[in-house]
Formats: sequence, C-alpha cells, structure tokens
Amino acid sequence: MFKSWNIPRAVRYRQINEITGLLGTAVNVQTRVFGNMGEDSGTGVAFTRNPSTGQNKFYGEFLVNAQGEDVVAGIRTPQPVDEMMNWRADIYEQLLEVKEILEYHYREMEDIEFTIERGKLYLLQTRTGKRTGLSAVKIAVDMVAEGRITEKEALLRVPANDLNQLLLPTFDPKAERDVLTKGLPASPGAASGMLAFSADEAVDRSHAGESVLLVRKETSPEDVSGMHAAAGILTSTGGMTSHAAVVARGWGKCCVAGAGEISIDDEKHTITVNGRTFGDRDVISIDGSTGEVMAGEVTRQDPQLSEEFVSLMDWADRHRTLAVRTNADTPQDAARALDYGAQGIGLCRTEHMFFEGERITRMREMILAQTEEERRAALDKLLPTQREDFKGIFTAMQGLSVTVRLLDPPLHEFLTHEEHLQVELAKRLGVSVERIKARITQLHETNPMLGHRGCRLSVTYPEILEMQVTAITEAAIECRQEDIDARPEIMIPLVGTYKELTLLRAKAETVIAAVKERKGFAGTLDIPIGTMIEIPRAALTADQIAPHADFFSFGTNDLTQMTFGYSRDDVNAFLPHYLEQELLERDPFQSLDTSGVGQLVEMAVTKGSAEKQNMKMGLCGEHGGDPASIYFLHNLGLNYVSCSPFRVPIARLAAAQAAVK
Amino acid sequence: MFKSWNIPRAVRYRQINEITGLLGTAVNVQTRVFGNMGEDSGTGVAFTRNPSTGQNKFYGEFLVNAQGEDVVAGIRTPQPVDEMMNWRADIYEQLLEVKEILEYHYREMEDIEFTIERGKLYLLQTRTGKRTGLSAVKIAVDMVAEGRITEKEALLRVPANDLNQLLLPTFDPKAERDVLTKGLPASPGAASGMLAFSADEAVDRSHAGESVLLVRKETSPEDVSGMHAAAGILTSTGGMTSHAAVVARGWGKCCVAGAGEISIDDEKHTITVNGRTFGDRDVISIDGSTGEVMAGEVTRQDPQLSEEFVSLMDWADRHRTLAVRTNADTPQDAARALDYGAQGIGLCRTEHMFFEGERITRMREMILAQTEEERRAALDKLLPTQREDFKGIFTAMQGLSVTVRLLDPPLHEFLTHEEHLQVELAKRLGVSVERIKARITQLHETNPMLGHRGCRLSVTYPEILEMQVTAITEAAIECRQEDIDARPEIMIPLVGTYKELTLLRAKAETVIAAVKERKGFAGTLDIPIGTMIEIPRAALTADQIAPHADFFSFGTNDLTQMTFGYSRDDVNAFLPHYLEQELLERDPFQSLDTSGVGQLVEMAVTKGSAEKQNMKMGLCGEHGGDPASIYFLHNLGLNYVSCSPFRVPIARLAAAQAAVK
Repeated sequence: MFKSWNIPRAVRYRQINEITGLLGTAVNVQTRVFGNMGEDSGTGVAFTRNPSTGQNKFYGEFLVNAQGEDVVAGIRTPQPVDEMMNWRADIYEQLLEVKEILEYHYREMEDIEFTIERGKLYLLQTRTGKRTGLSAVKIAVDMVAEGRITEKEALLRVPANDLNQLLLPTFDPKAERDVLTKGLPASPGAASGMLAFSADEAVDRSHAGESVLLVRKETSPEDVSGMHAAAGILTSTGGMTSHAAVVARGWGKCCVAGAGEISIDDEKHTITVNGRTFGDRDVISIDGSTGEVMAGEVTRQDPQLSEEFVSLMDWADRHRTLAVRTNADTPQDAARALDYGAQGIGLCRTEHMFFEGERITRMREMILAQTEEERRAALDKLLPTQREDFKGIFTAMQGLSVTVRLLDPPLHEFLTHEEHLQVELAKRLGVSVERIKARITQLHETNPMLGHRGCRLSVTYPEILEMQVTAITEAAIECRQEDIDARPEIMIPLVGTYKELTLLRAKAETVIAAVKERKGFAGTLDIPIGTMIEIPRAALTADQIAPHADFFSFGTNDLTQMTFGYSRDDVNAFLPHYLEQELLERDPFQSLDTSGVGQLVEMAVTKGSAEKQNMKMGLCGEHGGDPASIYFLHNLGLNYVSCSPFRVPIARLAAAQAAVK
Repeated sequence: MFKSWNIPRAVRYRQINEITGLLGTAVNVQTRVFGNMGEDSGTGVAFTRNPSTGQNKFYGEFLVNAQGEDVVAGIRTPQPVDEMMNWRADIYEQLLEVKEILEYHYREMEDIEFTIERGKLYLLQTRTGKRTGLSAVKIAVDMVAEGRITEKEALLRVPANDLNQLLLPTFDPKAERDVLTKGLPASPGAASGMLAFSADEAVDRSHAGESVLLVRKETSPEDVSGMHAAAGILTSTGGMTSHAAVVARGWGKCCVAGAGEISIDDEKHTITVNGRTFGDRDVISIDGSTGEVMAGEVTRQDPQLSEEFVSLMDWADRHRTLAVRTNADTPQDAARALDYGAQGIGLCRTEHMFFEGERITRMREMILAQTEEERRAALDKLLPTQREDFKGIFTAMQGLSVTVRLLDPPLHEFLTHEEHLQVELAKRLGVSVERIKARITQLHETNPMLGHRGCRLSVTYPEILEMQVTAITEAAIECRQEDIDARPEIMIPLVGTYKELTLLRAKAETVIAAVKERKGFAGTLDIPIGTMIEIPRAALTADQIAPHADFFSFGTNDLTQMTFGYSRDDVNAFLPHYLEQELLERDPFQSLDTSGVGQLVEMAVTKGSAEKQNMKMGLCGEHGGDPASIYFLHNLGLNYVSCSPFRVPIARLAAAQAAVK
C-alpha cells in the first residue's frame, strides 16, 4: 500500500483529480473476515442512495461466497443488493437498518463495504459516497426536505464543477437508435466516437483531435489516462461499482459498463456484438443513463434540468452576493446564457463579429487601406452590420448590462496566409496580391500576444474606435426608440497607462455626443466607459487609472500570460512537466494563481477602491467559471464574474458556496 | 514665440531631448539695443570657457555692424571674439571683466549674448552654457581646482550620458587622410558616411540601415530629425555657434561647420570641393575635433581618456555606493570593461558562446537529439569548449565576481530556417533533412518571448544545466589549481515560482559536489546560486524565492516587456505614436518605468530583504547604464548594476550623482 503511493498511475490519478500537497497515504489495520467460507457467506458494496441518480433507495451489489475484490474488480458480475431478500432476508433487513443509522449519524450518503461470514454481517468500511452531479444535487435537496441538513449545507454539498454533468447533452429521444446491446448505465451522459482499444491509443488519438470511445473488457488503474482522454468508456464485464464505473462517475464522463454481449478482439482491433463487427474507424454511441450501446453517431440534445437543480439554483441565488454574467457575442449565446441565469454580458467580443461572410472582406479592406480616408470608407461599410449585431444583443439582454469590448486582436489575425485566398481577396478588392502580401509582412509580429493590439489599435487608428462607438450608440438609441431598455457599457482593452484611457475615453465621449446630436436624441444615454485590467502595469497603477474608469474588468487570461511569462499557445511544451513535478499545483489558466496573479488583482482592487469608492469591478474569462477562482474573487469583494454560458450555473453555485463559507 | 511652442519641429526637438511635462515657454521682454548702427556697433555671442574642449579661455564670435540673428543663423561667418582686441580693445577688456563677474557669481560656464550700440556694451542674456561632454568634464574638474565648486558639485555638473562623447572613437592618427578641406571643429567625434542632402533623406536612409552624413549649406530647426538620424553633420557656412554646431554638441554628435570651400548642389545631389565631386553614394569622413573633411572612410580608434576624466572618475568611485559591473560574454569584452572600471561581470550570457564555428553544429546536434542519451552525447562535446570559455573569463576577471546565466533563449533560435543550411547540417550530422524540418516545426512558438526558454529549459532538459554547471565548476577548479582567484556565480533565469529555483538549485549543487569529488578538489569552492527577477510573478513572490537564492539580479528588459505587455521586437508599430502623443514620457526600454516596472522592483527588494537580510541584489540589462534608472536603483538600495562595457563610466558617474543627491 505504501509502495503504491508513487507509482505512475497513482501520480496520474492525483493529477487528474488535482490532489496536491499530500505527504502520503494512511492505512487502517483491521481484523479480517471472510466472505468466501461457503454459501452462507458473501460480500458486497452498497450506497445508501443511488450514486448515479440520487434516488433515495439502498443501492449496491453482492456476491455469494466471494471476497470483496471479486466485486470491485468486475471479474464476476454481482447481483443487485435487493436480491439479498431472496438469499438471506434477515441480513438484508440488518443492512437497511445500518443504512438508516449511518445516514442519521453522518447526514450524508454513505458508501459501505460489507462481508457476511457464516451468516454474520460485518461492516468493513463506510465513507461518504462518490456520486454524479445529478445525484449530488438530488441528495442535497432531498436531505434538506428530510430535515437532515440546512439549505446552506446543501449548497456546500454539491461540488460546483459537477453541475457540468447535469448540463451535459443527452441523446435526442426522437433520434433513431440502432441499439446493439445494453450494458449497465454506469455514468450518465451521451458520447459518440471511434473505437480505441488501449489507454495509450485513446490518449494518442484524442490528442490528435479524434473523438474516441475506450473499449475494454474491464479497466484497471493503468488505464486512467486513456479513460480521461476518451469521450466515453465501454466495458464488457464489471458492475456499477467496477473500476470503470467509479472512476467515470467521479469525472462525469459517460460510461456503459458490463455490456456482456460485446466480444472484444484486442488483436484485430474489433468488437463483435450480436453478429455485427466494428473496427477502430467505426463510430459507436453509448448512453450512460440507459446503458444502451448503439451503432453510428446519434443526435444529441441539450439537457433537461431537474426540479432539484432549480431548487438548488434558487438557494444559490438567494445566498450569493457575487453577480454572474456571461461572455457572449451573439443574440443566440446571450439567450442561452439568460436561460442559465446570466445577469448580463460581461464580455462581448466585437472581433468575432467580423469573421462572418462578407464582413471579413470589409475588415480586410479596412486593414489594407493605405490612408485614413480609405480606412474610414471601409469602416463605413462595416458600421451597419456592427450596429445590427449590437441591437440584437441589447434586445436579447434588455434591462441587463452588456459590456462591449472594443476591437482587441492584432490586425494580422484578420488576414489570410493562404495564397489562393489572397488571390481571391485581391480580385474582390481590386488591389494587387503584392499589396496584400506586403501588408501581411508589415503586420507580422514576433510576439503577437505582446504586440499591436487592444487599445493600441485605437491609439494608432482612432477611426476604428469611432466606428465601433458609433455603432454602439446608434444601436442603443434605436433600441430606446423602440422601448427596449438597452444598457451598453464600453470596455477599453489592454490599457497599461491611465493616459491611454483618458485619451480614448475622451474620443468615445465625443463620438457618443456627436451621434446623439445627429440622431436628435434628447434623452439620457448613460453609457459607462471602463477598462480591462489585464496588463500587470494596469494592476500596479490602478490608483492612477481608477479616476478615469467607470468600471474595472479583470482579464485574467492575459494577466496570467504576462504575470507568468507564459504564452497560452506555447505553454504545452513545458506545462505538463511542471504539473508532473509539482512546480505548479494546477494549470494557472484553468484556476487563478492566487499568490501571483491574484496578488495583482487584489492590488488593483485595493488601489482602485481607494481612489473611487464602490467602483464596479468584475472579471471576464476562463477563471470566471472556476469555483476556486470564484471563491478568491468573492473574498476580494468583486461585483461580478463573467464566464461562458455553459458555466453560468457553476459560477452561481460557486458564488453561493463562497458566500456561505 | 508662444505660437511656436507646438510646431512640429519644436515638438520633435523636445522629444529628442526628452523634455516632457512642460506647460509652455516663458518670454522675457526687454529694451532693444542695436548692433547695426554703424562701424562702432556690433554684436556677438560668447562662452566664458571653450564649450567644445573646456579650455579656460573666453571664447566666441562677433560681427561688426550686425544684429544677433546674423551670428546665430550663420549667414555671415563671424570673427573670433579675441579679434575684438584689434577693433575696440576697451570693449574687449570690459567683456573679460564681465566673464569674471559672471563665473564668480554663477560658479558656472556662461553663454552670453552681447551687443555694442555706438560704442556701449550691453549684455542681452546670460545662461549656463551648453557644452560637450569633454568640455563638461574639464570645466567641472578645473572649477574644483580653482576653488569655485566642491568635488560633489563637480560630479553633479557633468550629465552622465555625456561621457558617451568622451568614449566615442576618434580617427586613427596613423590612418591616411585624404583631406579635402577644413571647416570648424564644431562638435567632436569621428564619423564616416554616404552623403544625404536633406533631413528627410537622412532619416529614411539611416532607418534603412545606411550610415549617412547630412550635408547642408546651413541647418535650421526644420532639420533636427535628419541631424539626429545622421552619423554626422557637415555645413558649408556658419560658425561655432551656428544652429548646426550648437545642436550637434548638445547631442555629442560629430559636426564640422562652415567648410566654405565645399559647394553643395542640392539638385544634382553632389558636393564639389577643390575640383573633386562626390555624389550621394560616396563616402566622406569628418573629424569633429579638427574640422577636417576627408574622402572615403578613415579607420577609427578607441578614445584617449583625459586627465580630468580620470580625476572625475576617481571622485565618482569615492562617492558612490552602488557597484558597477558589466555584461560580457568573452575574455576580450571582460578586459575592455575592466579598463572602464567594471567591478565584475553581472551578466555572462552563455548562449552567445554557442554560435561560433563548430559549436553551433554541436548545439544543433543536441537540439535534434531524440533521446536523453543522444542529447547527453552532444552536450559532452560542448563541455570542453564551454569550460575553456569560462576559464578565459574567470582568468580575465580574477578576484571579481562573474555571474554566469544558464542557457536562456528558446532552442529554436539555434536552428536555421535556410533550406541549404538545413541540407548541409543534415549531411554533417547524418540525419535526414525531414527530421530537421520536423524539429523546427515542433519547436515553433507563437510567442517565443513567453515560451519554452530560461529555466524552463533546465526543467525539461536537466542535462543542459548539468553540462553548464559542470563546465563552470571544472573551470573554477582548474583556475584555483593555477592560483587564479575565480569567483563564479550561477544565475538561473526566468524563474516564476520558488519551486523552479529549489529544484534547479538542488540539481546544480549535486553537480558541483560531484565534480569536486571527481576532481579530488578538497578546497572550498563557494559558488553562489541566485536567480534573475525578470518575470512579474517572481517580483510578486520574491518573499518565497529569497530563502532559496544567494542573490537577485533584476532583468528589467524582460520585466518591462511583461509588465507593459510590449514585445521589444514589435513595439515600433505603436511606440512612436505613444511618445508623440505623450502617452508615455519616454521609451521604457531605455529608461526604467519607475511607476510600473519600478514598483515591481521595489516590491521584490522589500519582500526579498524582509526574508533574507543583506541579500545581494543587482540589475543587469539596458537600464543598468541609464542615469535616471541608476538614480532610482541607488535609492532602492541595490548593490550593483551591470551594463555594457562602453557604459560602465556613465554608470559609475550616475551612481556617484545618485549618492551625492
């Protein structure tokens, strides 16, 4: 046991589960009892409630005349625990009594291991049961109804990230299913993929961009990397508590276990099921909620949210103080995020609007312009579409703030490096290919991340800012005239010195006033103008910036890149080594590095607040949907976080947990 | 006068001279006198000492029956001021008396303007005289000898950057000189270049990488950009106080003025002098100390340093507390820096050692290695040359510290993108070209500045560190055995978390111990191991890093890049706009940004010192030779700065000025 602590698969398991800083493992020594002493003996594992659905029903498996490892390893397929009624009803009654005692005592769903030695029941172990997100929500909400725990405790019982699983897509019930066989619904979800026959293969192919299902007779701890990499896991033996099932549930990964009709040929790389054979380029779909295994890809659909989920979210909203917004660039994204409870848009990236259809041509025309006049002419053509984009989003989010970030990426991102597309563009714009190539060369940057982007674009090409602010203002006025409560906010990215902000703020204010004048709009049009704090120097000089900003929005993606000196695009050359050698506890792009990057955020909050009391401060980016980061940000007193629509419920729960803690 | 404040050439002049933050200009109103009222009238400008050499002799020019602007504009070539003796000896005596009064009162060399109206002398203006670096040093040291000022005052009198001029090369006196004509030695130095006939041309061609001399009949304020861009300035009219002469001296730029034998044809782009004609592709040399104009390029040589310079440097060394080291990668650089007074090497970049001759092939072999064994085999071949490099440097600097930075740049910098060189390399190493191309693709980075470099290389390829530390240790032991007092320090670059340092420090210590053991070296071999603080996160967590570091060396080049989010290679796309619009006061790569980057340095000093009292802290990089940065760093209590050999005297003087202030 002690020796196993540092074997590669244990190390890998701890990495995947972000278990760090432990000194080792502890071992209990206890008297041994035997479940394999005859037909009056047996062994089993059980959960006091269903770990997959949360249903309040004793749930587990047992084997007569067997030892515990036989159950866990999935070598023999065990019987459901309620069939003990037919074997030894007295012992089953005893077990149900134990269930009540344990839940009363621990006020939790327990995972127990038991053995019957010659008719006598022994409890070997009890611990808090691992469960799916779905189950965690139901158990927590049920236990409040049962008076076992309080609402606040219920909020803390559900790991916020596990909500992910409830929000996973399922197969469309109306889709045709070519069902090959049925296994055990070991871990819910819906996955389709080509077949991979070993953990290594699954890792390699999924890194190469393929969606694969890992198909194994049974899994063992050696397989964890492959299981993690795969879209789903399918085994032909083993039960609901087999290795595959337990591990997959912990990750919220779709798993069908013990599909015994499937015969796997590891040599030929094929599976055969009911006379049909599939190879490693064939796609199979598995339904982790029903256990069905289907040929081909099956249409998936968005999840249905349970009553218990709605209750938990209601409690979360009641307890949290941190608002949750979303990052959305289209009315569709905005609508979805509203469904998930978003309270506004914290980051609307205008550059995404320029890639569609004809717009990218206009954008390229603007970039290729050789004079300010040419540039303005191209921008004039972009203005109407940009205005319509904003109008759509403001309408979708009416009554809620929409923070629009002005153009951020370096201009070369909008040009194409493909020769034939350059030729085509040259034709369309009536310019020479050489001019396009020359401009690409001119715009080339050694380190684009640290280059000519963000507000630096507005400093050198103020006409871009003018077009964007015009579009925002016109859209807002048109909404108001149609009785739509549009609430835009203008966010200036990549500010490093307050002088950039004062210059660009003044330009934006001039444009807003001019548009109002031109449109004859007499009402008030309160458009706050704020800045991103995403450059270390902005955080360091937040006291100078605050007087000129109506809000701060922390851009911790870029702030992390610059504070660590890590390029997000290149970090994979060394980050895996860093995590493996524990030089870093976790990927700082996934979870905010509180001691470094977080220190800058804290500094900016402190310095900014000292200069401007009650200034609105938020965060937009990956960390806005990460529970650990949210805990940190709540404690700093931020007003909101903004994350992808899909993570909004996670952020709401995490914010409530932070408040409760 | 008021209107001229914001005309482009005034703005440009202030930029070049880094004059920022002014509200406007002041204007004195005074009674007018006339120097053009006949042969008993005249006007002149003079310096109480020679502004070019510092010689203590009244120095200037006058014109009979003329107004001041006639002298300054260089339209008529005036007479030397001592020729007033032959015109009106009484007035000349009066002027000499005025010189004494002014120098006694101001304790400074004064620049005066005077007019004689019908035999009566009027002083129009006196101000501190602009002077060359050479002159500044001589005047300051002389005034101490004359009892006018103290040593400390003398130290403050010389702008440290002006020492640059004393350290400028001169023409080799033994070189053959094809002298075409002689003008006035308006500003010392030696320059060669092709001829440019307008300021714009000088700007364009020097930006394109050419060395050009700006040739003008006379210069005017419109020409300042071209004058700044040119390697030197040559005029055919105007005196020692003409526009060209005054401006060039202020910058320490070589200038020959009033070379009246030269006839300039701006249309044809030629000059003709004594029957010989030169066009814009011909090279001319000018000697700013003799006024000679020569055909072709003349060999230049290192400057001879004056007695006064030596005195001033002695005083500087006596008053300063900040040590000055140098950045040097070869024994030759080290020796030159020692001549300039360097007290050690603060930055020895090992990567520069890998580019020469056969070494780059070995380096590439190492990079192309596919296994650790292959990599070690290639490194074994690099070890002997690396050891000899270190031995040479330790020997040159014996008794002084030599801080060796472990390999820093990303590996792709050592590979070649040129097809034919790849083919050649493939042949030499006996590998396929495809393998080389594949490795280049694999090593490609989107943002190399934030990529796989610095200590990240040692984490992923510890054998590189092992080879380098072995070379350092072996070289140190060999030196000791030859009674050479080698004092290496090992510097680990790009640390972002203390865990990198603890890991790599342990590895380095293991190697040092192993080498000592293998070499049977029983003596103590104190090799401090420190780190660069060049990533914002390192500064923010300096309290965690300090316990594991024997020294900190601030790498403010990279720290500036990351704190601002500016890539030094790409910043020219917007930095000129930023300076022009005063969004930045000065280029933060030239002068440390005290409020942002400096705040991080200060934080690291404070946090580091709190954890480890008296820890040695220094700075290496461009800012180590910048007087304003040195002032800031002195006040933070740093132990040393390290700059390029050529800037060592500047840093010594700047450090003394900081201490005196």
